[in-house]
Amino acid sequence: MNFCSHCGAPVVVRIPPGDTLPRHVCDRCGAIHYQNPKLVIGAIPEWEDKILLCRRAIEPRYGLWTLPAGFMENAETTAEAAARETLEEARARIEITGLYSLINVPHINQVHLLYRARLLDADFGPGEESLEVALFDESAIPWDRIAFRSIAMTLRFYYEDRKAGTFRFHTGDILPPKRL
Amino acid sequence: MNFCSHCGAPVVVRIPPGDTLPRHVCDRCGAIHYQNPKLVIGAIPEWEDKILLCRRAIEPRYGLWTLPAGFMENAETTAEAAARETLEEARARIEITGLYSLINVPHINQVHLLYRARLLDADFGPGEESLEVALFDESAIPWDRIAFRSIAMTLRFYYEDRKAGTFRFHTGDILPPKRL
Repeated sequence: MNFCSHCGAPVVVRIPPGDTLPRHVCDRCGAIHYQNPKLVIGAIPEWEDKILLCRRAIEPRYGLWTLPAGFMENAETTAEAAARETLEEARARIEITGLYSLINVPHINQVHLLYRARLLDADFGPGEESLEVALFDESAIPWDRIAFRSIAMTLRFYYEDRKAGTFRFHTGDILPPKRL
Repeated sequence: MNFCSHCGAPVVVRIPPGDTLPRHVCDRCGAIHYQNPKLVIGAIPEWEDKILLCRRAIEPRYGLWTLPAGFMENAETTAEAAARETLEEARARIEITGLYSLINVPHINQVHLLYRARLLDADFGPGEESLEVALFDESAIPWDRIAFRSIAMTLRFYYEDRKAGTFRFHTGDILPPKRL
């Protein structure tokens, strides 16, 4: 951020009075531009004993597999975001069954929410951001080609819970990748 | 948003190619400025059979009671946000025991998360944004002076669960207030 989105003047980075963190502030109009984490929301769409994954047609992680998920939009609920992303990326209609995981990714200022969901029919296919969409049983999950660590973590929780016979809500934190 | 925060040129509102929603876009530098919901995170700090509430020293809802909560900051986790807000608003140290509620407030582009937490000691007091901070048992909760509907909803879930003897995770959606 270089300029005030309200009045167009250059912004400076400074701790405002009464605040504790540096913010982008405008000395011309007085606006304070806060930056906050974003929600990435998706679904685990279930069909019989399989789940639906999408292969990414966009960066980052082009060509790798993920659950349908994306940035939550203004004016929607978290469950609506999960259903919208599943429709956009996998052309699939779901019924949300419950929140399944909350994964913090603080080094990129994101919180990831994944819902369990039931596919309403087996009519699905790649949306514009997917190369292909497919149902996987546990033995076929491409563990070494999963796009994001939050998704791999959620899928590990999922298959552990399924083995244990009880699905429960999970939380986790993802640390920055180790530099080699 | 009137000006591009990257290059300072005026922005226009238009649906970018490949997108489905109108965005603030800059025709000079090409930047697309997305706006996304914000997370408001707080805690239900428990001490014996009481919980801690704060009376607001700031607008909106000056003078009304709420759980300690506020906007999540970049580079922290959701649980860290709950603990930080409790320290800032109630000068109280807590141990998080689990996520308790997720309340969507889509008409103001917010998602509220409340954690159950244990006060580590009874040493607390008003932070800069609180007029007073106090422990309440159920019979003393000022139901007609709670600042936010998401907080009242969470407190209702909490006392229903306590009566039932089992705390479980809850979700809810808040609709726009009715216009009289």
